[in-house]
Amino acid sequence: MDYIEVIGFVAAVLTTAAFLPQVYKTWQTKDVSGVSLTMFITMFTGVILWLVYGLFINSLPMLVANTISAILIFTVIVLKIKHHKK
Amino acid sequence: MDYIEVIGFVAAVLTTAAFLPQVYKTWQTKDVSGVSLTMFITMFTGVILWLVYGLFINSLPMLVANTISAILIFTVIVLKIKHHKK
Repeated sequence: MDYIEVIGFVAAVLTTAAFLPQVYKTWQTKDVSGVSLTMFITMFTGVILWLVYGLFINSLPMLVANTISAILIFTVIVLKIKHHKK
Repeated sequence: MDYIEVIGFVAAVLTTAAFLPQVYKTWQTKDVSGVSLTMFITMFTGVILWLVYGLFINSLPMLVANTISAILIFTVIVLKIKHHKK
């Protein structure tokens, strides 16, 4: 793997793992008022499309990264809806 | 542009534009307690690396999408730090 592919790999890991701290914070604090549901739903839709795109171009890294992102984003969406104060 | 490229294009637009509602919500409400700074800093780092990767592989769409994402994410980071209650 040359250094350019390493940059792409690290970028993929970071932009996938980035959702983990938000899942943890929301899980711990139940503080969802400041979290934008629209952002997470839009992001979820985009990530699913990247997943479909990855399927079509047979890109395993895209499949793996976007599946993890989709699961993490979906978790935030469920927590946001569950702890949303009327 | 065949339908597979269209899927990739729409995915790129959604995962870029997704940050806009969070910028708007945070700008309007100043409610940042539930927003994870770690997520946005990790995402920012990842997006910058995707930008560098896009430079190396001469991908204009990656340059454009990740530049917009970086600006939006950076805005959320500034708002989060500015409105963070001690």
